[in-house]
This record gives sequence, structure tokens and C-alpha cells, in this order.
Amino acid sequence: MTIPNQQSNMKRTSLSDNDQAVTDLRRLIIDCCRQNGGGHGGSAIGMVPLAVALWRHTMRFNPRNPEWFDRDRFVLSNGHAAILLYIMLHAAGYPEMTMDELRKYASPKTPDRNGQWEATLCHGHPEIEVPGVEVTTGPLGQGIANAVGLAIASKHLAAVFNKPGHRVISSKIYCTTGDGCLQEGVAQEAMAIAGHLGLDNLILCYDNNQVTCDGPLSWIVSEDTNSKMRALGWNVLDVWDGDDSVEEILAALRLAQMSTSKKPTFINIRTTIGYGTSRAGTFRSHHGTYTDEDAARFTNGDGDSVSHCLSQQTRDFFLPLIEQGNVLESGWNELVSTYAESFPQDAQHLRSRISGQLDVQDLLKTMNPNVGDPLATRQWNGAVFNTLMDNVSSMVAGGADLWNSNQMGDQSSRILGRDHYAGRVVRYGIREHAMAAISNGIAAFHPGSFIPVTATFLMFYLYAAPGVRMGALSHLRVIHVATHDSIGEGQNGPTHQPVEVDSLFRAMPNLLYIRPADEEEVIGAWMCALGNENKNVPSIISLARDPPSVRIPTTSRDSVALGGYVVLELDNALVTLVSCGSELQCAVMAARKLAGELGIPTRVVSMPCISLFEKQAETYQKAVLSDSPHIVSVEAYVSTIWARLCTASISMDSFGYSGAGSANFRRFGLDGDSIARKIQRHVQSTHVTAKRWVRLE
Amino acid sequence: MTIPNQQSNMKRTSLSDNDQAVTDLRRLIIDCCRQNGGGHGGSAIGMVPLAVALWRHTMRFNPRNPEWFDRDRFVLSNGHAAILLYIMLHAAGYPEMTMDELRKYASPKTPDRNGQWEATLCHGHPEIEVPGVEVTTGPLGQGIANAVGLAIASKHLAAVFNKPGHRVISSKIYCTTGDGCLQEGVAQEAMAIAGHLGLDNLILCYDNNQVTCDGPLSWIVSEDTNSKMRALGWNVLDVWDGDDSVEEILAALRLAQMSTSKKPTFINIRTTIGYGTSRAGTFRSHHGTYTDEDAARFTNGDGDSVSHCLSQQTRDFFLPLIEQGNVLESGWNELVSTYAESFPQDAQHLRSRISGQLDVQDLLKTMNPNVGDPLATRQWNGAVFNTLMDNVSSMVAGGADLWNSNQMGDQSSRILGRDHYAGRVVRYGIREHAMAAISNGIAAFHPGSFIPVTATFLMFYLYAAPGVRMGALSHLRVIHVATHDSIGEGQNGPTHQPVEVDSLFRAMPNLLYIRPADEEEVIGAWMCALGNENKNVPSIISLARDPPSVRIPTTSRDSVALGGYVVLELDNALVTLVSCGSELQCAVMAARKLAGELGIPTRVVSMPCISLFEKQAETYQKAVLSDSPHIVSVEAYVSTIWARLCTASISMDSFGYSGAGSANFRRFGLDGDSIARKIQRHVQSTHVTAKRWVRLE
Repeated sequence: MTIPNQQSNMKRTSLSDNDQAVTDLRRLIIDCCRQNGGGHGGSAIGMVPLAVALWRHTMRFNPRNPEWFDRDRFVLSNGHAAILLYIMLHAAGYPEMTMDELRKYASPKTPDRNGQWEATLCHGHPEIEVPGVEVTTGPLGQGIANAVGLAIASKHLAAVFNKPGHRVISSKIYCTTGDGCLQEGVAQEAMAIAGHLGLDNLILCYDNNQVTCDGPLSWIVSEDTNSKMRALGWNVLDVWDGDDSVEEILAALRLAQMSTSKKPTFINIRTTIGYGTSRAGTFRSHHGTYTDEDAARFTNGDGDSVSHCLSQQTRDFFLPLIEQGNVLESGWNELVSTYAESFPQDAQHLRSRISGQLDVQDLLKTMNPNVGDPLATRQWNGAVFNTLMDNVSSMVAGGADLWNSNQMGDQSSRILGRDHYAGRVVRYGIREHAMAAISNGIAAFHPGSFIPVTATFLMFYLYAAPGVRMGALSHLRVIHVATHDSIGEGQNGPTHQPVEVDSLFRAMPNLLYIRPADEEEVIGAWMCALGNENKNVPSIISLARDPPSVRIPTTSRDSVALGGYVVLELDNALVTLVSCGSELQCAVMAARKLAGELGIPTRVVSMPCISLFEKQAETYQKAVLSDSPHIVSVEAYVSTIWARLCTASISMDSFGYSGAGSANFRRFGLDGDSIARKIQRHVQSTHVTAKRWVRLE
Repeated sequence: MTIPNQQSNMKRTSLSDNDQAVTDLRRLIIDCCRQNGGGHGGSAIGMVPLAVALWRHTMRFNPRNPEWFDRDRFVLSNGHAAILLYIMLHAAGYPEMTMDELRKYASPKTPDRNGQWEATLCHGHPEIEVPGVEVTTGPLGQGIANAVGLAIASKHLAAVFNKPGHRVISSKIYCTTGDGCLQEGVAQEAMAIAGHLGLDNLILCYDNNQVTCDGPLSWIVSEDTNSKMRALGWNVLDVWDGDDSVEEILAALRLAQMSTSKKPTFINIRTTIGYGTSRAGTFRSHHGTYTDEDAARFTNGDGDSVSHCLSQQTRDFFLPLIEQGNVLESGWNELVSTYAESFPQDAQHLRSRISGQLDVQDLLKTMNPNVGDPLATRQWNGAVFNTLMDNVSSMVAGGADLWNSNQMGDQSSRILGRDHYAGRVVRYGIREHAMAAISNGIAAFHPGSFIPVTATFLMFYLYAAPGVRMGALSHLRVIHVATHDSIGEGQNGPTHQPVEVDSLFRAMPNLLYIRPADEEEVIGAWMCALGNENKNVPSIISLARDPPSVRIPTTSRDSVALGGYVVLELDNALVTLVSCGSELQCAVMAARKLAGELGIPTRVVSMPCISLFEKQAETYQKAVLSDSPHIVSVEAYVSTIWARLCTASISMDSFGYSGAGSANFRRFGLDGDSIARKIQRHVQSTHVTAKRWVRLE
């Protein structure tokens, strides 16, 4: 070990210090749940001995620099127990987490006197923006997947950078889970992946209190959890007195740290929800406030019954963590300095990974266009992706067992596996939700150090949607490659045809849903997704299975960033067709027919990303959409958000059908001829109203 | 046993009959994958011996009446192997599944000569509308959950109706799964529930071919599946020669049927994907066509190499299934007759369950309104729900561990558990996706025999969304009670505030997303959801955590079915506010202020269900929305589909915040005063364009 072990640096702690800290912290939780009439105190109270064992005795971190690169990471997957994390950050000396901040926990958040909205660090669930919070958690199960992602990130960096005698990467990942997370499918998926990859830097601590929101766990769970975890390839340890014995928990943590099993470790810690309070051991402990008697049972070490304070003994007990943090980080800085002398190139690479710099815009801007027959966007995307993988070492990709169908290319030499953590392609298996949530964890390791990429069919991003959402909410740049979009996805039928999924992702804040029409726009989609302006924004790049039948010479990679732009201009047009993806070719074919034989002047706008278009200046938006009286969207989805921009839509209003893409476009009236016919009928109709959007039959 | 066991009724089958059937059916799969240049043949070929064991020797069904009530149910969870199901329906004598239908498998589906679109029974994945197909499958994992739902339905009916000597309900559920389904979170959740509930009428047959789309299973799975299944409470059996031995599979099925373990059974059957073909055992078997040599290896029993035929021996072998089906159904009809003599009331009840009749409209129409202070819609919904539970025996409900927060009421006397299958409330645990998919399975048992109800927070229906979607696609009426909608969900923060989830569900075909504003509209929501016109339509009833602060006297339960209606009328209004849910009260308060002190005549429309409104006559829609120049939606979601109806929206465009509902409505400008202010500014603005929708800041 180059980095000194934590406890060897510190004075030997006495039992009474641990116990007093546990008592004080439980009282502080009770105070915080009483201050505003409620809070999720029960599991937090039960987990205090675990928290003391982790924060005071085990984890490596620097309270004065929460972003220190080589710290251990802590994930509270049972995010409702947020108050536990907040009081630990307070006790451990994170300067932002003052007692005044703790007093805002569960505040109804009324405006202050100046009409400004009060801000809080103590959100209902932990949010990544708060110093010391590694990932945003709350929706159950995903935190475990985030932790798996963090563990993959650490294993990968260690494999890439560590050298004999120079262990510059040593982060371990500690994750807590309640009974709830362990039931969620996403957690099962993630735990299976962790076992498969042998992530021995991951320790999952199970707050086994046998109580959930509605009642005893036995109402809903009969499984033998330890056996299940062993079957998934985990090392399993038991702790029987999680309520009172910091020492027993600590012994298990030590054992886990020393394990050479090459497995992640699951520590099954028996606790009591709301331990020591009047509602201990029942579902009523899950959320609520506490009585005076409950508070009085936890008198702090100074014999003080004043609320919101830690005893002097407890403050003294935690005080060394600040100095320890400085020592750890200084030691690591020295280590990196000697590393730089011995391995200058690696050190340079490490620095660039830490800085999170990325410059691929020139690469993408100058990438040669495809000059042969038009390729399916999924296929050309594979070429772009492979070029990026060759050039961007921070890109860690993976697919959900449709890698070949996604046409992501041969990355077999780069597989990240239990014998090759230096690889950069994770085979996630048929586990879409975990894939997205794990990718969030990888991205959360350090800002910009990783650019995770995921891949599956667009339809199956509905399985992953809760993870995609948490990435958007957490400002984590993950790029989701979603092939087989729309009803042109082959012949799998409506179960695989996402006619409504775009509506979710286009409504989701802080997410780019980009649907390029051709090779040029695929490059543009990556330019956006990897642009510096979107370093805190995840993207879905939505791609077609089949190649377009015509090439549109006016598409432009540079214009994708504008969201929408004109690809077929015509003065005094009566109709503007707005389209994207595979349907842009149909719109162009329809426009040519309309403007030609049908005598209806029609122009065409390519709109690969509605949300980017809506960010442009109003003058630009107006110029692109023009003054044509009919602005009609053309897309093989149920049209929802299009009505913001358009007077009418040609779209789906049902699920799809088992048929080849071209047949489906005809079946549902989205081929060029059908579009032209619908437009002609609409323009000639006397029923057209200017105000109301209409779907054209 | 009152129903005669299948094989005792039939001539003893010889080994060669089994083997010949396996060979013929494999050849037929190859033919069907060759006819249109592809298909998912590999796993189908591997599973033929299992299929012969199930269809020829094990399952109870009547090919001439696929809807016979007491049949066994078969679920192909690995739905991509659909061709296996189609050829078995053909062999077993389902009259609709002719060889001509099989020839349409994987057809690109071009229009026929008359311009009509060709229909198929042999969809890319099995669809419930096809006779003999029990549930629509394809998205992996959900079929297992459907099977769990079917097993719950059968167990429940058996507990309610069976009497000593009168076993009128005896359906067993047979489900096949590949390596893929077993990785999906939803399957893990469902299998945990099956183990917890001890569903010994469920037999899950694992096509263990160790190959997935991208390559060998070992690339993505390291778990000990049998141990995992045992840990989940399953009985586990192994079959080692699944490729060749119908008999070994049959022995395992017999053992499973005889088990008194009170556990579901998992049969781990080792097979080879694409067995006997040139691509056997590799991922290339997953999808594609086959060579002449592949076809030649499977010559049918007549020595015939003509494609698309079964040998006379095989046809003779399957022929008795038709007579057996008649015998089974006749025997059951006799059993029900004697049952009716001994238990006339139960028989009447059983008949009503089979007929699927439901008449609760009068009950709901005449339900007394709440006369006290306005209640939160979630709370009043609990009262309505409990009344319905008292009156509708087909209603089988369940929640995902938020039953108390959902305020679904005390149903503790009705819990469905391993010792009380007659109960009607399933505790699904924290397994939202499985809850939805299991509910689809319950609904699929027989049309109208069950009305499943689910409950959790609206946010967590995003976890369940793939299941909600499959219910909509499959025309299965399941009612989803989604509380804590919008940003007024308490103080949990943005992780729990579904600002964009409505956009998904409102875009989803064949689903009602109903967002009632108050008690009256909650009753109306149930009237719609349970209306005869929606017997094939699932609903989400979206409910608020907090009570409204004012009562709107003009809301109407009867009008919910119209989707939208006027609650505050005003002639010559300049502004029409359109709103729903908690925000309707804000819209009404704003309208009063606008029409009063601000001098801007404003009327208000309540729009609890956009999709129902869009189904109304155009004249009605115009009358409701009126000619007012400004039609503005008011809702605490990102507004997408509203732009179809409105000129502007007052809405969210970001994630929410940790704060009480009322504070959040103020924070994000959705309280009455903010709405009035935004409208005033908008109306006075010179920038208003008639054509383009705009979001009001």
C-alpha cells in the first residue's frame, strides 16, 4: 500500500467514542425529523452504527476537497434515508453541511423575504450537486447500479494507470441498500453484472431491518437473500448486531477489504428501523416525526438535551477526519508526482482524464462523408462510433446484447471483463435498466473522466427509461445509441416499434433526443452530444435500421446543433414539411411531388432535435419554419410535441405492425405518395382552421 | 382428479412417434425461416422436444375452442421463438393456423392486389389476438411475469370455486424462457413473487442453450441459476438431453406436476440453439435463414423432402389432440353441471365470472359525493376503490409497497397469500414492473374474468411503463392507480416528481390517462375506466397527494367521459384556461382574478382526459374550447400534447424541487396568482402570434 491505511494514522478509538457518536447522531436525526414535522428517519437511525463504521473508520475521503480524485465513493441507494448522509457529512467536517443546513431538512421551502426561493442542500433525497453526495438516489434499486458503475470506473482506471509500486487509483465503492432496493429488477440486474465482472472493490451493505413502507418484509419477500447473492457470484458476510456494534460492522468491513475472492462483497447487517424510538421495528418508523420521549432517549454525551448538537466527545471523535483527509490527499499528490517522474506519458494521460477535457469536434467536423450508397444511420453510426473509440480513451461503451444488430462494430479487443478491466466495452447482457443506471455511475466517478455510451433498440430504452431520467436529472453525460427506431425496425412487430417512446424522451428535461436523417446528421448528432455545451447533458441518438432510398444533398452536420434547418427551400411555399430520421426522405419525395405534378409549393425542414431548435433565437425559428400557412410534421410516431411548432401532423395514432419498414411506411400512410396525397387533401379542404393543430388522415 | 389425465386417455406413444414429430417440426421451422429469407429459428429448433412434450403429452386444451375456460395456459416468454408456437398450434389442430398462414411468417407484408393490407397470424412475435396465443410477448422478461399473473388467476379461482369432489378450476401455467428473459429485472421480480406466493401451478421451462444474440452466454452471465431459483423459493429440476429426449423432458414435467412442495417449478433444460443445422450452438442461429443442406438434414417421416409438410406419422400422432380437447371440455362441462346442482350460487358466480359481465355504472353514478372539506383525490379514490372492492368480485388489486401512501384503504382481510389464494389483494413488493406485467397476465386469463388494479406513485409507473405498454398493446383492461402526481407530491424532490411521465402515457395508443381534479371527477374516472366501451383499454388514474384548497361546484362525474368540459363559462371570453388535476383549482382562482380585478374575461375548461376529448365530435370540441383567442393549458408538467389543443401553455420546463406541493406550485409559477400574472402579460404582449404555440414564462 502506497497510501497509508486510514486507521493506522489515527488515534485508537475507544468503544465509548463509537457508542457516544452513535447516540449523538441518532439524536440529531430525530431532531431533524422533528424540526419540520417529518422526515425519513427510521432507517437512518438504524444505520447509524454502519455509518460511523464507514465514515469514521473505513472510507478514504477529504472533507475539505469532496472532489479529491482518489477518494472512496459512498452511495446511499436507499436514498430516502438522506438525513443519514447529511448528518455524516456534517460530522465528518464537510464545511458546506452546517447545522443551519441540516435545519432546512424537510422544510416546506417557502420564499424568503426578498421573494427569492430558499435553496437547500438537504433535499428529500440526496442530489449529486451537494458536496459529498456522489450520485442522486431515491428511485429504488438504481443506487446499487450506480455503485456498480462507480466500481467499474475505478477498476478500469486502476487497470489503465496503476503500476507496480504506484497505485494511483485505489477507490473503493461503499453502497448501502435497504430491503426495497434489493427487490427492484434494476438492482438484480446490476448485482448480476457486478458478480459477473468480479468487482471486488465494491462493498454493498444491506440495512436488513425487515420492514418496508407498508409493513413487515415477510409480507412481500420469502427469498434467501444470502444464497441468492452467492448464486450471483458475491462474497457474503453476516453482521448480527447492526444496532449496537460498530465493532462488528467494522470487522466485517475489514474482512471484506482483505478478501482475495475477486468478488464483490455483500454484508448482511441486521438492524432495527427506528431503533430505540417508540415506533422501532414497525413500518410507522419509515417516515414521520418523533415524540419528546423519543428525543429524550438519546441524550448527547455532555448530558445535554439541547437539540441539534453533537457532544464535545463526538466532535472530538470526528475531528481527525479533516486532518486525515489532508494527509490522504497530500500523500496521493506525492504519489502522483513520483508516478509522473517514472511514467510521464501515463501521468499526462491521467491528468487529462482528471481534467475531463475533450476535443473531438475537429475530428468529427473533418470526418469524410460516406460517398457510396446511402447507409442506414445505424450502420454509419457504427463507423463514427468506432472512430471515436479509437480517439477518445474516456469513452466506455456497452450494449444490452444487441451489439451486432446495433451495428456498433467489432470491439472484441476492447472488452472489459474480469480478466481485463482495462477494456472499454462492457457486455451488459439483457439488462437495459442496469445498463443505463450503471452508465450514470461511471459518468459520476469524476466530471468528464468518462463518457459512457450505451446501445440497444429504442424500444428497450423504455426498460432503461428510469435510468435515462436519473442521468438527465443528475446532469451526467451518457450517450445512448438507440437503433431500430420507429415502425421501420424490421419485422418484429408492434412489441418492438416505439411509436410513443420519443414523447417521453422529448419531454424529459436536460436530455437531447436527436434523430438524424442520414450519415451527415449522424456525425452532427455526435458533435452535439460530445459538444462542450452539452457536457452535463445526456443524449439519445435515435437511429434507423434500414438505409434511406435517396440521398438528400443539403443535410449538414454543422446544422444539427441548431435543432432544425431548411433542406429544401422554396419561396412562397404553401406548405412546410418538418421531419427527421427515416421519414425525412419521405418528406422530400412528397415535397417534390407536391411542388411538381400537384402544383402545391412545398419546402422541407430537417428537424433532428426539437429541444435544440426551441433554444434558438425566435428569428431563426421563424425563418426556418417560414410563413407558409401549413407547417406539417412528418414522423412515424404519435405526434405530441410537434404541435408546438406545426399546424398539422402526419403521424401514427396506433401501434405498428409486423412488416418490413418500407411496407409499414406505406401501410400507415407515411411514404412519399401518401404524404403528398394527405397534404393535397388538407390544403384543398375547407375545414382547415388556423388555430387548432390537426392530424392528417 | 375429476378431469381425466391427458395421457391416460390416449394411445401409448412410441419413441419413434416423438422423434419423428421432433424431426418434422424442426424441418417445418427451417422451411418457415427460409420462405421469406429469415426468422428467429434457432431457439425454436432447440425447443421442439420440449414443445412436443408439452403440447402432445402434457397440456390440457381444446384446439377447437381455444378459449375453453379451464385449459392450461402456455406462455412463450422468449417471444422471438414465435414460429415454434405457430407450428405447434398448426400441429395440434387449431383450425385457424393453416399451413398457408405459416407461409406468411416473416413476410414483408406488401399490399395485395386490391390495395388491402395483408393480415397475418404469424406476427414477428406472438400476439394475443391470435387463437391459441395467451399473451403477447417479445420484450424479454415480461412473459414470465404474465405467466405468474395467469398462475395467480388460476390459484385464485380454484380457491374461490373448487369444492371437494368438484375441481372446476385446474389450469396449470406452462411458460418457456430463454437465457434472455432470465436476465431481465422484471423476470427477477416476478420470479421472486411466484416463490413468495408458492405458485405450484406454474412450471417455467428454461431453454438453456447458452447462447444469446451477441455470443455465448458466458460473456454476460456467471450466475448459478439453479441456486438462484432455489433461493427465490422454487423447486428446481434438471434435464440434460433437451435436444433429443422428449421422454426426459416429459419425466421432468410429470415430476413437476406431482410435486407437493407448494413451490413453482423451474425446469432447466439443456438444449442447442439451431440444433442439427450448420449454425448450431452459435449466436448466428438466433436469427436468419437456412441452407438447403440444413433443410435436407430434417427429412420428414415419409421420406419426403417437400417443404412445408408434416409426415403422415406425425399428423396421426397429433390427431388425437382434437378428440382429446373435445373430451376434456365435455368432461368439464359435465363437471360444472353437477357443480351447479350442488352449489347453485357458486355456479352462478362462476358463470358471471366466465361471461365477464360488469355493471358498476349505477353504483358509481349514485355514489354520494363527499360533503365535507375537499379531500385529496388519492384519499377519495381510496373510498371509491374500497366500495368497488366490496361490490366487484373480479377486481384483484395490488400495490408496490406504497399502499398506505396511495391511501388504498384497509384491505387486510383480503390479502392474497400462499395460505389464502381466495384473497384479492396482492402485495407485489417494491417491484413495479412485475406488478404491471403480472396484472396483464391476470387480465389475460379470460376476457373480463378479472379486473386487475395496481397502485404506486405516478413516478414509479416509469419503472412499470414497459408493462403498462404491453397491456395497452394487448387490449387488457388493467387500472393503474397513480398517486403523488406532478410536483405536488410532498417533499421528496425531483426524483419523485413526474414532470414528463404523462407525455409518455398520453402518447401511448389504447391507454386512458385520466387526471381528475376532485372527488366528483375521481368517480367519473372510474366510470370511464370500468365502462363497457373501455373493456379492452387499460387506464391510469392519476391522483394528487394534497387536497385542493377550494371546491369547484361545477365538476361532474358524468362529464369525465367527454374528456373535457366547461367548469367556468363566460361569454366572449378573451382567454380559455384548460387544466386538470390539482391545477384546475389554480386555473379557476386565476380565472376569477383575471375576470375580476384584472378585467380579462376568462373561462375554464376541465380536461381530465385528453384522448377521450379528442374522440368527441368536432362541434363539441369547438364548443368546449370556444373561440377565445387565447386557449392556455395549465398543468405542472412539461407541456407537449397540450399544444394540439391550445395556443399557449403554463407548464414546467425543468425537473421539480424538494418542497411542499403548495410551495412548489408557487416556486414554478403555477399557483393562481402566477397564472393570472402570466396570462395578463401574455394577453397584453404584442408578440403573440396566432399560429405558434408558446410556453408562458
